[in-house]
Amino acid sequence: MIPFFNFIGTFYFPFYSNFMFKKIDSSDITFFKSLMGDRCFIDKENLEKYGHDETEDLVYLPEIVLKPQTVEEVSTIMRYAFENSIVVTPSGARTGLSGGSLPIQKGIALSMEKFNKIINIDEDNHQVVTEPGVITQELQDAVKAKGLFYPPDPASKGSCFIGGNVSENSGGPKAVKYGVTKDYVLNLEVVLPNGEIIWTGANVLKNATGYNLTQLIIGSEGTLAIITKIVLRLIPHPTLDLLMLVPFFDAKKACEAVAAIFKAGITPSGLEFMERDALIFTQKFMNDTSVKIDEKHQAHLLIEVDGFDNEVLMKECEKIMLVLDEFQTDEVLFAEDQAQKDNLWKLRRKVGEAVKSQSIYKEEDTVVPRFELPKLLDHVKRIGANYGFKSVCYGHAGDGNLHINILKGELSDDQWDNELPKAIRELFTEVVKLGGTISGEHGIGLVQKQYIDIAFNETGLNLMREIKKVFDPKGILNPGKIFEN
Amino acid sequence: MIPFFNFIGTFYFPFYSNFMFKKIDSSDITFFKSLMGDRCFIDKENLEKYGHDETEDLVYLPEIVLKPQTVEEVSTIMRYAFENSIVVTPSGARTGLSGGSLPIQKGIALSMEKFNKIINIDEDNHQVVTEPGVITQELQDAVKAKGLFYPPDPASKGSCFIGGNVSENSGGPKAVKYGVTKDYVLNLEVVLPNGEIIWTGANVLKNATGYNLTQLIIGSEGTLAIITKIVLRLIPHPTLDLLMLVPFFDAKKACEAVAAIFKAGITPSGLEFMERDALIFTQKFMNDTSVKIDEKHQAHLLIEVDGFDNEVLMKECEKIMLVLDEFQTDEVLFAEDQAQKDNLWKLRRKVGEAVKSQSIYKEEDTVVPRFELPKLLDHVKRIGANYGFKSVCYGHAGDGNLHINILKGELSDDQWDNELPKAIRELFTEVVKLGGTISGEHGIGLVQKQYIDIAFNETGLNLMREIKKVFDPKGILNPGKIFEN
Repeated sequence: MIPFFNFIGTFYFPFYSNFMFKKIDSSDITFFKSLMGDRCFIDKENLEKYGHDETEDLVYLPEIVLKPQTVEEVSTIMRYAFENSIVVTPSGARTGLSGGSLPIQKGIALSMEKFNKIINIDEDNHQVVTEPGVITQELQDAVKAKGLFYPPDPASKGSCFIGGNVSENSGGPKAVKYGVTKDYVLNLEVVLPNGEIIWTGANVLKNATGYNLTQLIIGSEGTLAIITKIVLRLIPHPTLDLLMLVPFFDAKKACEAVAAIFKAGITPSGLEFMERDALIFTQKFMNDTSVKIDEKHQAHLLIEVDGFDNEVLMKECEKIMLVLDEFQTDEVLFAEDQAQKDNLWKLRRKVGEAVKSQSIYKEEDTVVPRFELPKLLDHVKRIGANYGFKSVCYGHAGDGNLHINILKGELSDDQWDNELPKAIRELFTEVVKLGGTISGEHGIGLVQKQYIDIAFNETGLNLMREIKKVFDPKGILNPGKIFEN
Repeated sequence: MIPFFNFIGTFYFPFYSNFMFKKIDSSDITFFKSLMGDRCFIDKENLEKYGHDETEDLVYLPEIVLKPQTVEEVSTIMRYAFENSIVVTPSGARTGLSGGSLPIQKGIALSMEKFNKIINIDEDNHQVVTEPGVITQELQDAVKAKGLFYPPDPASKGSCFIGGNVSENSGGPKAVKYGVTKDYVLNLEVVLPNGEIIWTGANVLKNATGYNLTQLIIGSEGTLAIITKIVLRLIPHPTLDLLMLVPFFDAKKACEAVAAIFKAGITPSGLEFMERDALIFTQKFMNDTSVKIDEKHQAHLLIEVDGFDNEVLMKECEKIMLVLDEFQTDEVLFAEDQAQKDNLWKLRRKVGEAVKSQSIYKEEDTVVPRFELPKLLDHVKRIGANYGFKSVCYGHAGDGNLHINILKGELSDDQWDNELPKAIRELFTEVVKLGGTISGEHGIGLVQKQYIDIAFNETGLNLMREIKKVFDPKGILNPGKIFEN
């Protein structure tokens, strides 16, 4: 029996309030300095650095930043924090868009950046064992050098950590064919809030042994445990791909074309939607003129197919073209070489940053069954018109995952702070009615938790709260994320 | 706050003992008769029918069999059972091999057989909504008629229920390319032990909204909730496949060839291993002479590739043949037509039954990373020799999933009852050292729970026990399965 199980129950409710957490004092600092020497920071610059991520302009300073480099150190830190009721917020590359890594209750920012080694690329078993602080792109490149493929690739793949991807169950454009992070994680080494260490599963492709703790940790946004090792399955890397950019005269038609492509039996390896403004803002932001956007183009689909056989890919492209014939498109741009492909993907990946550079904004991450995408777009524009906000929509249309960037533009602070949440609530309610949910890949974190009751009824939320207490009876690990504890 | 959360904690430990569960009495029977009329059974024949599954020769009679047909009825039954501390054991088609559906604490056998409707095949979104009591094969056939594919196909697919597949996280031969049940379940409607109803997720391909309750329920073997609706994703059905049966002069070489095929960049849609005796027993059992087994053939691999392009498949077969050249095979049998393919697959699917017909037996369901398969086979034979038991091995080699059927043969009852568990413990310990685990697709249920401590440390098991209590504070739902409560 591990100690904290003796304490489960209503008894713990008080601990969830801010005032019950202990502030970092000089004896804590002495302890951490003796444990970690110069990997322990209380200077203003570091506190500020670990006080924000990519979520809007939110800043919450921690009291101390720790950079452990072994699982034993993480365990010691957590045991100390547990015993002293000190809040710990795990921190990856802080590229998150829902505020999951913000230390909103102060305490320790636990940076996993020193866990930056790929431990073993196992070519015999098509697996990789990695530490969580490895940059996703670097992991992908390392396994690609062995002919292997780790597909999930969020837009931030050049800077985000694989551990953050696991914590948020990240997706990205390849998810449409290859699945999301959760579909590649076989096993996790994690440190529990009381410092105990477990492996959640086994390094196997199928597993019917006990409850799936691995899948419970994935997407739990650092609220249940600290991830210290990750075992991922890999697949053979496709050798070929073809990419096309398709302009549509009607944004809704572009959305309708998405499900039609799948209904024709094609599974593209990328199927991205960009509303007119998304591409225009991004071209301006990147000073790019490679794509000629006619004034009649209301939206684009970026469509990729990949595989191992050129003839098969050509046939798939022909089938896609046949489908597109039904949806009033302008001339399709086929990428002619790798440079052009890279440029088109870069345009797509930079949309978020480009929109952000335009105005104060909020990013929503709705997801619906893909055939419902046109209805979702209708709701966005209708609700936007009612509440007077302008939105730029883009995203992983093949998955039904639409990123909705709402621009502050001319809205007053009052409208932005008090009216917009009502509009978002109305939109999310429609999303759930369509069979969808409120986050496809960004997580709930801090900024979406006020809407979580739309996705789950009170019974479901209470199950989650009680599961949280099983792992973290004192509520010290990343409190105030996903739901109110 | 739902009522049972008030009671969580050590307070409930006494309820987990047998004597605290209430026996069914005449007032309970009156209640159930008034609720369900003639879908409520206490006759000997029914109690016996629902008192066993396909696990060895185990029989545990329930006190009453209920066959609800709506989610509201399930909810009413569970609320009543919860209030009265009556044990409920969910029952599917009872094809399980680990005793998950055995009513070991008597009480209610809750048969889901009336939940036998496919609610909606959604061709627009490549999804199906089904009730849990639909036979897996019927579900597969229904979606195939629309060109869609639901891949997971346990050997019992002609009789098992999809709800049972979800509860056990079933695999089958297609898992090697297409994944297991958990990779297709998007959303579940479930009734909690106290009668409350929730949806666990949303009908979407990617989801970063809250803890993954869906994946927590999958593979929980009916211990957390009753599944009443299932939303599955579907994929385009491959139009072509090629099948070959490869005889090896050395069983270990056959195991070695498995990882080599993947390392050559091929992902077969089936890669099955059969030890010599597995095929010989099955031919005898089925009175089949279609495959000529030379006395030098020590094992066979059954290899399938599938897809949409014949030339691609032919090329894949050529690559496989090149790999096999390195592993001392005899002449490869290519299935010439559908009838021959069906026959070869039937031979493979019947191995379990055939072995069972030979002798009292125990079936183990080990799984390791696939390159470790030859080592696993070595351990099986070495430990078998030490303890004097004979084993017949076969299974989903591409996944590293080896079914080990241990025959009682000449072993004394004492050896069988007291020595064999030591041998199995020794074997499972080696499996875990190889990165594997003790069940790949059959579940832990009743008969493997004595070994669960090999797969998880005490901390991990305690997390599972506490999660169980969150869902089921009185421990009334399928008690005594997976782990001791």
